[in-house]
Amino acid sequence: MNLELFTLPSNADFLRDHQSLTSIIPKIEAIVGREHVTTAAEDLLCYAYDATNRHCRPDAVAFPANTDEVSDILKLANEYPFFVVPRGAGTGMTGGALAVQGGLVLVMTRFSRILAIDTDNLVAEVEPGVVTGHFQEVVEEKGLFYPPDPSSAPYSTLGGNVAECAGGPRAVKYGVTRDYVLGLEVVLPTGGIIRTGVRTAKGVVGYDLTRLMVGSEGTLGVITKIVLRLFPLPEVVRTLSVVFSRIKDAARTVCEIIRSGVVPRTVEYIDQSAIRCVEDYLDIGLPVDAGAMLLMDIDGSPSAVEATLQHLVAICDKGGAHQIKVASSEQEAKDLWRARQAISPALFRLGPDKINEDIVVPRNRIPDMVEWIDELRSRTGLTIVTFGHAGDGNIHFNIMLDRRDKETLEKAESAVEELFGKTIALGGTISGEHGVGITKAPYIGMEIGSEELALMKRIKAVFDPNGILNPGKIFYASPPTADD
Amino acid sequence: MNLELFTLPSNADFLRDHQSLTSIIPKIEAIVGREHVTTAAEDLLCYAYDATNRHCRPDAVAFPANTDEVSDILKLANEYPFFVVPRGAGTGMTGGALAVQGGLVLVMTRFSRILAIDTDNLVAEVEPGVVTGHFQEVVEEKGLFYPPDPSSAPYSTLGGNVAECAGGPRAVKYGVTRDYVLGLEVVLPTGGIIRTGVRTAKGVVGYDLTRLMVGSEGTLGVITKIVLRLFPLPEVVRTLSVVFSRIKDAARTVCEIIRSGVVPRTVEYIDQSAIRCVEDYLDIGLPVDAGAMLLMDIDGSPSAVEATLQHLVAICDKGGAHQIKVASSEQEAKDLWRARQAISPALFRLGPDKINEDIVVPRNRIPDMVEWIDELRSRTGLTIVTFGHAGDGNIHFNIMLDRRDKETLEKAESAVEELFGKTIALGGTISGEHGVGITKAPYIGMEIGSEELALMKRIKAVFDPNGILNPGKIFYASPPTADD
Repeated sequence: MNLELFTLPSNADFLRDHQSLTSIIPKIEAIVGREHVTTAAEDLLCYAYDATNRHCRPDAVAFPANTDEVSDILKLANEYPFFVVPRGAGTGMTGGALAVQGGLVLVMTRFSRILAIDTDNLVAEVEPGVVTGHFQEVVEEKGLFYPPDPSSAPYSTLGGNVAECAGGPRAVKYGVTRDYVLGLEVVLPTGGIIRTGVRTAKGVVGYDLTRLMVGSEGTLGVITKIVLRLFPLPEVVRTLSVVFSRIKDAARTVCEIIRSGVVPRTVEYIDQSAIRCVEDYLDIGLPVDAGAMLLMDIDGSPSAVEATLQHLVAICDKGGAHQIKVASSEQEAKDLWRARQAISPALFRLGPDKINEDIVVPRNRIPDMVEWIDELRSRTGLTIVTFGHAGDGNIHFNIMLDRRDKETLEKAESAVEELFGKTIALGGTISGEHGVGITKAPYIGMEIGSEELALMKRIKAVFDPNGILNPGKIFYASPPTADD
Repeated sequence: MNLELFTLPSNADFLRDHQSLTSIIPKIEAIVGREHVTTAAEDLLCYAYDATNRHCRPDAVAFPANTDEVSDILKLANEYPFFVVPRGAGTGMTGGALAVQGGLVLVMTRFSRILAIDTDNLVAEVEPGVVTGHFQEVVEEKGLFYPPDPSSAPYSTLGGNVAECAGGPRAVKYGVTRDYVLGLEVVLPTGGIIRTGVRTAKGVVGYDLTRLMVGSEGTLGVITKIVLRLFPLPEVVRTLSVVFSRIKDAARTVCEIIRSGVVPRTVEYIDQSAIRCVEDYLDIGLPVDAGAMLLMDIDGSPSAVEATLQHLVAICDKGGAHQIKVASSEQEAKDLWRARQAISPALFRLGPDKINEDIVVPRNRIPDMVEWIDELRSRTGLTIVTFGHAGDGNIHFNIMLDRRDKETLEKAESAVEELFGKTIALGGTISGEHGVGITKAPYIGMEIGSEELALMKRIKAVFDPNGILNPGKIFYASPPTADD
């Protein structure tokens, strides 16, 4: 994988005046105000990164404050033309916010208002730059609940969450970002402003532009407003951790739990590789010989939660658990979650760089996948740690390495390709919640057929005939050719 | 409203040989077999209707049995060209299955296999001609649950449900058809075969073609396979009916219930007009002076349901209910539902024809809407009965009349237009679950702006460049012009 891949040969001279985007900076300044545009090297550097830790320097960065400004910039971009890359907080895992072809990065963080929270109809209207975690706190103060909880929630923005269709541990019970977006305001790549969807619980008028935008990774438009569905805040949350000798038993127990009609709010699993990695880091007495640990939260009314808890303990017991801990206080719950939360920092003791993938397999194929990963680990000698959302079959697969070690890097890249092949063979998908961006773009053909890709590219061309918005993502976003 | 509206002037000579579609019948026969094509007048008549009670005679009807046959027919349709109108059971409420421009009706009922029910992963794969109610029974025998429950479920097909994004009373807790479709196999209007979505709980690879197809009313492709998410079957269901003097109190109570964190499986309301209409029909002692009745089902584990029931009764009591009946047996529950289920047959005592709309307003605006409808009723003298899904804000608005009475018909049509205007003004949508089809197409511009409509038409053109599939629906599906 290298960034040369993302140069679009057919677009080589797209930016007629690429080296001097600076010459139209005054026009961008006239739109957003001088203080909201920068070409200073240190600023460009800040907006050259995202959570993939790759580096793509934009030519300029602008910070628009309202829909009309975004519209004017996009009109200008088509006229000139130049590339525009919308960006939230840059916490994406696949490079969606990177200016891989240069151009203007459009930072949406000034769109930071919560416009309305309707406690009767359980609907909120927000701007895309609102930080997910902040929004959660604000609605929780009103007794409401916004379930999607990507682990970047303290920093990520709702606009980025919508663009990538972010998930998180609670998805097993509450679904992903897509399930909460009722409607959007979007500036099309050509500068037109559209409003999609509804402000009500239901609505089926015309094509579903809302869900077409969700997960389109900033390639079909710039989101400027979001209407979100909310839930009432569950009264209580209880946590339990369950240790199994064999991961097969853990996975079978998860299937059994969900089939029994009880859906916990989270069903996280940590396999032996992750348990050992964390124990080595924290030294908190984790069961390093265990095949897997499950970490479950259940929520609801106190009586329902109590009944569910008994029910879960019984199923886990029957399923062969050899240790079950139920937190009896908030502090104990935090302690149980500590192992799960320590995985990411602990990982970096194993190597300075991380390749992380978020494949999904049918829930009952997790043991097959983990077994296969064990085999891959011993065969390649790579440092591989996995954990994930067992209830969804969503496995976070991490290879820890030093990218400067070219031999290991090549081995890791070929392991990722093998992983994707195995995932597809098990009936899964190569991305559960991170999107495709640039890191998975070379592999999209393993999952999506050529007819479907051609259709997606033609849809892209309908929205963005000049190919100015977030180029180089998903399927390289090259303009459709006669073959498409 | 008349069907002349649906003649596309620009397509007047579309069917070069429209009067003699019969001349290519042998080619269609060669694809599906002679016994699966008909042009007999009595057959054409059968497939000229749907639940709108409008009449559009097709030129021929074919009954394909597999994906390749559908693909071959669509290729032929582009080559010739002729119009193709896919059809499930014809239970649609807005004319989606009507051959408004003639052409070939493609009846999908031979696609009637349930291909797989995966009890570990709670996923099913079905063909589109499977009857919804049959599918529900089959999964329930396995302890699973398919929640969407349009009232046509005993007859409607899953393919039609997906094409229209069908809802039903349980949507308040469980969502609509869209929320259950994980993936599809679709024959594109040009004959290409695509597979969309995933077979797993999550997936975000490429644009969301799955949800773009859901609710597209048979205009973007012919669905040939559906992957559906299932739930475990709730252990028990309990029913209660609650009578309020004033509809305002009923609506406020519904908001209070949902805000309290308890979402009943159904929250139906019947207003005074419907209570009186049903009582007049059944004579079962309904409270004809009541402002509204709520009918609620709650489901879950026995202990959770018991707790919820107490909680609901307390909220209703506090909300000013003057009668609360809790069914203590299945038979009593059926009796409580009898009033709701009798509405449709009872309505026809008020007039031989029905104009029915399914608008949605924010849940807490139901009283405003019902008050406005009362005013409309007295102002126009029209026979209007409303009921609906209070938890969703989804109101079924019915005008009973004799269509031969032209004066009343005109008055009714102008009342519908007023209704839609009021709906939009209250922040609602003109269709919660029936789609747009032909009956709402003239009004779509009240809800969807010209920029959005132009975009939808351009998407239509990407999928169906020759405009052969289900013409005349949603936005008349005319080919995009230079102005679009």
